[in-house]
Amino acid sequence: MRQCIERKRAGGELSADQWDGIITAFMEGGVDEAQMAALCMACVWRGMSFDEAFALTGAMVRSGATITFDPARGIVADKHSSGGVSDIVSLVAVPIAAACGARVAKLSGRALGHTGGTIDKLETIPGFNVALDLDRFAKQVERVGCAIASQTDALVPADKRIYRLRDRTATVPAMGLIAASIVSKKIAGGAHAFVFDVKTGAAAFMRDPKDALELAGWLVEIAKRFGRRATAFVTDMHQPLGRSIGTGIEVLEAREFLAGNADERTRELVLAISAAVVTACGIDNAPQRVREALESGRAAAKFREMIAAQDGDVAAFEALKLDEPLTVTAAHGGYVQAVDVVKLGYEGRRLSEHDPLGGLRVAARIGDRIEPGAPLLHAYGRDKKHATHLSSTFTITHAPCNVPPLVYETLT
Amino acid sequence: MRQCIERKRAGGELSADQWDGIITAFMEGGVDEAQMAALCMACVWRGMSFDEAFALTGAMVRSGATITFDPARGIVADKHSSGGVSDIVSLVAVPIAAACGARVAKLSGRALGHTGGTIDKLETIPGFNVALDLDRFAKQVERVGCAIASQTDALVPADKRIYRLRDRTATVPAMGLIAASIVSKKIAGGAHAFVFDVKTGAAAFMRDPKDALELAGWLVEIAKRFGRRATAFVTDMHQPLGRSIGTGIEVLEAREFLAGNADERTRELVLAISAAVVTACGIDNAPQRVREALESGRAAAKFREMIAAQDGDVAAFEALKLDEPLTVTAAHGGYVQAVDVVKLGYEGRRLSEHDPLGGLRVAARIGDRIEPGAPLLHAYGRDKKHATHLSSTFTITHAPCNVPPLVYETLT
Repeated sequence: MRQCIERKRAGGELSADQWDGIITAFMEGGVDEAQMAALCMACVWRGMSFDEAFALTGAMVRSGATITFDPARGIVADKHSSGGVSDIVSLVAVPIAAACGARVAKLSGRALGHTGGTIDKLETIPGFNVALDLDRFAKQVERVGCAIASQTDALVPADKRIYRLRDRTATVPAMGLIAASIVSKKIAGGAHAFVFDVKTGAAAFMRDPKDALELAGWLVEIAKRFGRRATAFVTDMHQPLGRSIGTGIEVLEAREFLAGNADERTRELVLAISAAVVTACGIDNAPQRVREALESGRAAAKFREMIAAQDGDVAAFEALKLDEPLTVTAAHGGYVQAVDVVKLGYEGRRLSEHDPLGGLRVAARIGDRIEPGAPLLHAYGRDKKHATHLSSTFTITHAPCNVPPLVYETLT
Repeated sequence: MRQCIERKRAGGELSADQWDGIITAFMEGGVDEAQMAALCMACVWRGMSFDEAFALTGAMVRSGATITFDPARGIVADKHSSGGVSDIVSLVAVPIAAACGARVAKLSGRALGHTGGTIDKLETIPGFNVALDLDRFAKQVERVGCAIASQTDALVPADKRIYRLRDRTATVPAMGLIAASIVSKKIAGGAHAFVFDVKTGAAAFMRDPKDALELAGWLVEIAKRFGRRATAFVTDMHQPLGRSIGTGIEVLEAREFLAGNADERTRELVLAISAAVVTACGIDNAPQRVREALESGRAAAKFREMIAAQDGDVAAFEALKLDEPLTVTAAHGGYVQAVDVVKLGYEGRRLSEHDPLGGLRVAARIGDRIEPGAPLLHAYGRDKKHATHLSSTFTITHAPCNVPPLVYETLT
């Protein structure tokens, strides 16, 4: 191991066998955390080749169980987001695509930092079971057409250990390590096609669109080298994507969305990503099918079917209702120049911590012209009274400003 | 800690308080080995400022006990070598300087890799106690004028842990970390003046003379900033320094040296380093005193006095005698161009492993003109029969070659 670290330290490349040996030894205890941390820092320093990232991805996949879907019975897709704020895309794109006949096996994560987690959101539906075992998960995909379950310890245990290690040793920012971490979990999840949503902007893991585009390229290429189909979107995170920030409050927005009451920006991205999932599953005419599934109510019905299949209480889901908000208003008029999305993300997590329907609804967007006293945010839940200070999260200036694009790039 | 790693990762400088906090937390468990390894790799990557190395040195000194010698009772000196092969300088320079009236408190290490360790050598003298407790060590320096003891766990425990960590995580080559490791142990040992011997060449920790000179500069400057006197020699390790390679066989060479039968190259360096130690202790006319101490037999007597003070059996020391050697000869004639010192170092360790008087005596030097069949090495001890393959450790060519200098540089 020391020689591998020395090689990487000197800017060299490790072979596939070396990456395999490192991951095996790390899981068996022959390589310790200090050695892995030093290697990760050397990877941050020297970078990794595409071959190395591919080799590491494979080695991590082999560290645990994998799910297999028989491709003869149809393509199975999975959708991944690099982490956003007010991002209900997974919640609604999965049932929309399934309503179009796609099969979607989605493994999701929990909230991390200021970004929300689909699993935390779904757990606010009474009874909803996110901890499906691999067999039940696969069977539900076959039967219902979709399932959303939490990443289990059985899949890619090496990634779990290495990710925690990288987090506390400040060795996260190495493109090859990031790509291997993301793709290994997707490969182990068994889907044949992936749609990646790589966020960029102040509140994204990849702030710079160039970095986000580079990561998107790695994700697509590594997935393809594993024989999978892949599409990646680079999308905006300079402001919250949708209207709601929290857990249950985002499930409520998903319900409203599927009922036809959609935030326009979210709708644009959901339609694009849903169509990419449907296309990846080999179904033609996807954009039109997606709109029909949404407008006909079939997507809304599929969401309820998925909730029921995962032991969720559909009646309780229907009854979800927000309390009276505390409204945060603009101290002065002007144009919304910027939004502190990170702060809003953390505040959404705080408000939903003790109240599943606590959270924020965003009433102003970048580029909006605001009158003095106009609403910026509505805060909900039992801790909402502390939200008044949030008016400072909006930067309001006299000059009009450009609105960042929603989709920067699409890669296939 | 993560922020400190991030700062170093970005090429920033950590404050003295941060280094202090890191070492304290590392010793108390708040910073784990993975985090320390990542930080060390970031230091290899980004380097460390002199201020950082000084701060780290101080933080490490404070991780354990320290020895104090009252300067009012005279300057106490210590001598350090960065690790060589066939290097008896410490064994003889310490009693020579003490015989001149200097007080020498030498803390030594064990063999590491291909390099020998003064402690391992002294332990071949029956009864010799290298594990002096701090009090006995200090008292012996006052009474006898010199003591050589092994670095104890009580002094600089942080260095011990960090050094092991760096060794297995390939994070050794950072000038600031190396200098802090060396100087912290010297500072904790309590001496007021240090003489450093930084080796350079193929078998040295610092192969490149420029690196060795840079390290020598750091050692001297850090020591001075702690208010200590310091001198550093940059000396050659392209070939074994003296005649013998092993443990007891080097003690025997030391006995012969003090009896006036000295290898010329070793003698030149011993005289220079002994004089530097004597000068550092505030004694004038050091070069002449050193020669007189050696030639009068007072240095030899002082060595025996030190052996006796440390429970060593002086009669057994006097009786040390080599067995009949196996002689390794040159297959063809020519000039000795190079010597594989690393291989010889390992072979010396192997031969002395089960036989304290096992080892090698070197019969040819770089630049020597050799006849075919002339002796290159003599191997001693019960495992000597496997030494015949060592003739290949000498590169013999037809053209004469330059002899590397013995002392490259002296810094004060």
